[in-house]
Amino acid sequence: MALSSRLQSSATSVINQARDAGLPVERAETLYTDTLRPALLKTLSVYVIPFVKRTRVKVEELESGRVVCRMPLRGNVNHIGCMYAGALFTLAEFPGGPLMLATYGISRFVPIVTALDMEFVRVAKTDISIELSIPKEDIARIEEETLNKGKAEFELHGELRDAHGDLVARSRAVYQMRPKRR
Amino acid sequence: MALSSRLQSSATSVINQARDAGLPVERAETLYTDTLRPALLKTLSVYVIPFVKRTRVKVEELESGRVVCRMPLRGNVNHIGCMYAGALFTLAEFPGGPLMLATYGISRFVPIVTALDMEFVRVAKTDISIELSIPKEDIARIEEETLNKGKAEFELHGELRDAHGDLVARSRAVYQMRPKRR
Repeated sequence: MALSSRLQSSATSVINQARDAGLPVERAETLYTDTLRPALLKTLSVYVIPFVKRTRVKVEELESGRVVCRMPLRGNVNHIGCMYAGALFTLAEFPGGPLMLATYGISRFVPIVTALDMEFVRVAKTDISIELSIPKEDIARIEEETLNKGKAEFELHGELRDAHGDLVARSRAVYQMRPKRR
Repeated sequence: MALSSRLQSSATSVINQARDAGLPVERAETLYTDTLRPALLKTLSVYVIPFVKRTRVKVEELESGRVVCRMPLRGNVNHIGCMYAGALFTLAEFPGGPLMLATYGISRFVPIVTALDMEFVRVAKTDISIELSIPKEDIARIEEETLNKGKAEFELHGELRDAHGDLVARSRAVYQMRPKRR
């Protein structure tokens, strides 16, 4: 992710300059990795893809292995005033990016979506939310396979729910994780 | 589709006034149904859903049983400059509407998308096109079942191709057709 890479470079550059100047930088590095980077990812990841930005989707919660996003109804309606299927798809697809970055960091791996199946259960008449998570054992398995075999396949299953908690759609995304080319 | 319904009402109203005035309106009706309505659908259907309009997708060819649409790369790129998956989804989903309207007219049936599966084959580096069609025997079967059983299920399979003709994604959309409620 180009934006995150630039953020990483800036932060690393500042920290390296501080280290070269003989300053104690361990706390700064920890602060950046644990607090600043997740906050930046949460706020900025929606701006990376213009198509996603136009929907005004928001990352509401983001941590290693878990993301919650919300798509506003406003601006994303279809011809009958309910949320357009393409907005529901975007809500199911987009959070995979920040989720991977928050889980594996931003410099080692690249996730590629190879398939995404949407099942539309009922019309969406409010803002819609999705929570996606990767079980701890899968986090470790994906990392190990990507490092040792050069790629790892995994799936993210989502339930898209309206403001009343009712299910409006289900998603099944298939990803392939690969090491980032240097 | 609200816009098409309004167009239909305007056209019908004008034709009825002409008939009431004793004018020969058969040619006007034929002209509207065969020429004017498809042209209006082709031009205006992209404006019905704001989400779709924002992508600047175009209906390039439209006739009963067949539609060709093109999604511009410009404005629809992801973080690595290729077409975003959500734009490819929209290109696969949106044409079903004008296709149904061109095939069955705008006043009798309502198509509902119940599932849409996307398979991403390779990155999309140019404008992307899709052609969707319904075989003649399916057109008749869907009409008959919708009228006699109150609904009909059918699928549209799409191949999304780049400017060189290379396959970048496949889509499988499942629709349910229902009679329009009066």
